[in-house]
Amino acid sequence: MSRGPALAVVGATGAVGEVMLRILSQHADVWGEIRLVASPRSAGRKLAVRGEECEVVALADEAFDGIDVALFLVPGEVSARWAPVAAARGAVVVDSSPAFRADPEVPLVVPEVNPHAVRLRPRGIVASPHDTTLTLAPVIGALHAGFGLRELVVASYQAASGAGRDAARALREQISLVADSDLGTGPGDVRRAVGEDGLGPFSGPLALNVVPWTGELLGDGWSSEELGLREETRKVLGLPGLRVAATCVRVPVLISHSLAVHARFEGEVTVDRAHEILATSPGVVLYDQPEVGDFPTPADVVGTDPVWVGRVRRAPDDPTALELFVCGDNLRKGAALNSAQIAEMVAAELAASAGPSPLPAEPSSAPSSGG
Amino acid sequence: MSRGPALAVVGATGAVGEVMLRILSQHADVWGEIRLVASPRSAGRKLAVRGEECEVVALADEAFDGIDVALFLVPGEVSARWAPVAAARGAVVVDSSPAFRADPEVPLVVPEVNPHAVRLRPRGIVASPHDTTLTLAPVIGALHAGFGLRELVVASYQAASGAGRDAARALREQISLVADSDLGTGPGDVRRAVGEDGLGPFSGPLALNVVPWTGELLGDGWSSEELGLREETRKVLGLPGLRVAATCVRVPVLISHSLAVHARFEGEVTVDRAHEILATSPGVVLYDQPEVGDFPTPADVVGTDPVWVGRVRRAPDDPTALELFVCGDNLRKGAALNSAQIAEMVAAELAASAGPSPLPAEPSSAPSSGG
Repeated sequence: MSRGPALAVVGATGAVGEVMLRILSQHADVWGEIRLVASPRSAGRKLAVRGEECEVVALADEAFDGIDVALFLVPGEVSARWAPVAAARGAVVVDSSPAFRADPEVPLVVPEVNPHAVRLRPRGIVASPHDTTLTLAPVIGALHAGFGLRELVVASYQAASGAGRDAARALREQISLVADSDLGTGPGDVRRAVGEDGLGPFSGPLALNVVPWTGELLGDGWSSEELGLREETRKVLGLPGLRVAATCVRVPVLISHSLAVHARFEGEVTVDRAHEILATSPGVVLYDQPEVGDFPTPADVVGTDPVWVGRVRRAPDDPTALELFVCGDNLRKGAALNSAQIAEMVAAELAASAGPSPLPAEPSSAPSSGG
Repeated sequence: MSRGPALAVVGATGAVGEVMLRILSQHADVWGEIRLVASPRSAGRKLAVRGEECEVVALADEAFDGIDVALFLVPGEVSARWAPVAAARGAVVVDSSPAFRADPEVPLVVPEVNPHAVRLRPRGIVASPHDTTLTLAPVIGALHAGFGLRELVVASYQAASGAGRDAARALREQISLVADSDLGTGPGDVRRAVGEDGLGPFSGPLALNVVPWTGELLGDGWSSEELGLREETRKVLGLPGLRVAATCVRVPVLISHSLAVHARFEGEVTVDRAHEILATSPGVVLYDQPEVGDFPTPADVVGTDPVWVGRVRRAPDDPTALELFVCGDNLRKGAALNSAQIAEMVAAELAASAGPSPLPAEPSSAPSSGG
């Protein structure tokens, strides 16, 4: 490990993988080898990372030989099958899928909120939360540290890309269909313009519409993303009894999730103190001057790393509650970035335990290409 | 008044006026003369109502001569100027503007919730709430009657047409612009595709975006629509101390507002009882079978009269609270329909006080044309 730990990126050819390779090329380079791993049908493709072409290798046991940290950017069932394989071969797994988020032996980490949890990983696996939780966590974690959180009521405005690349493509096609159609104002006119074939993965048309459903149906009418936001927020904040009620809604936005948040705290709060806290919190940008039109919108924050917060108000009838509007790029902080941050924390930990000065200040040689 | 009271429709040529003329043509005909009134520049235009062409007359004192009920579908400053004129000439004014909603001597009426309030009108004026309040009121009024309401947290998904006809047109143009552009995924790419000239009345691009702002800026970072929803809901429900915290957000939908609602009640609630209440409430359609994809969306409810409610769940950590998703056509129940319902209640009251049988079961002659 003379040039930093070896990293495997599993799922390098997917939507989040693509963002991850950009992030790895932009961040300070702490890695030795970076090996790109994907399904066998993508093996042999070449992708650029750190300015070098890198050949994709097929997901298999030996793909993890010599790997120190394995970033999993794949669906839950793939992580469930392969993350334990990577861990058994000695890699620390950073998993972005839902597979291990609820596992009590797997820490769920947002580096701005609970960085120390990353070291307690009895299974050798660290999980990264769902994109909606990640949009909320840096803001609400900072306010919890300042005020003590008691309750959250959240309504989401989730982008199509949160449901995958095909979902974002379906929205773009729907936008073209409704733009070209002579829409009426009757029930179902948008649905007819989009057509049943054009719905994509959504349960209704998304162009010129909103769909109050994301995820799978769990019991009592709840969606998996609504209850997931509750469970994950509780775990990241270390508040197992926190009251959380969420309504998750898909909106016709390509990238970046937004959340309207009602947060109740232990005692009285002020907007001035909330502004002070948010203005100095890592990973958070306070953008809150409605008198000049400054508040975050998804189209304005897309492509940026932090989560953005504005519309900070004290509830008019409850001096212990704040209202907030939060936006974040669901493919960056909401997925690739948080996993990259966790992996970089693990890299620093491995480097520190490997010797006194394992990482050169300047890379002394060109990065190797994997494969 | 042998053939029913005479009605003036002030603002007949506007977006809400257009919907009002359709409603008057569809509803049971309780009116004698219907006189269409608009600004002097629209005088002389002919519009169809009850199957007859009707000439528009200019707004002036004498436009209210012989009028029993005057429906005002105009901006607040026009209502503030002319509603007292109509009332002084003996008409009962039904005003859809914000001008009188907060006036303690003007009742604010949602016929499904507080019908009796219409009779207490010391100024001769009855006000109809804002479209967002009207989307919420039939649902929350019914649940309040059943459970006793304590607190509301509301996040809105408001359609462009709530900001007027030009706003809806601006959204359609923005949809065409983004459909034709080769959008990137960087900050401001949507804003550049739309252009500063294409923003219309919105403070940011609305196509492929959401804008967490509707209305004017009031103090402490609140928008007029957020505080208006609080004040109006309190007045309609007769609960001056009700806790209401709202975040109002514009979404790229042409017609129909949606609301994610967290409602806390006096005691324990159940979804079964809430379903019973909502299934039997006037003006409300319960549409809540997420297991087969049945929940309301704005594109599916547009053009219909009732408000639709689904996603009814009990808060997972609070047995006294319910989560709901409500959709309603902001140009029908949200504007024209509610005012028409109030006017029809006044018509019935006037008819009852005029004699034993003033309204023929079948109109015995063709309606007169105004002007």
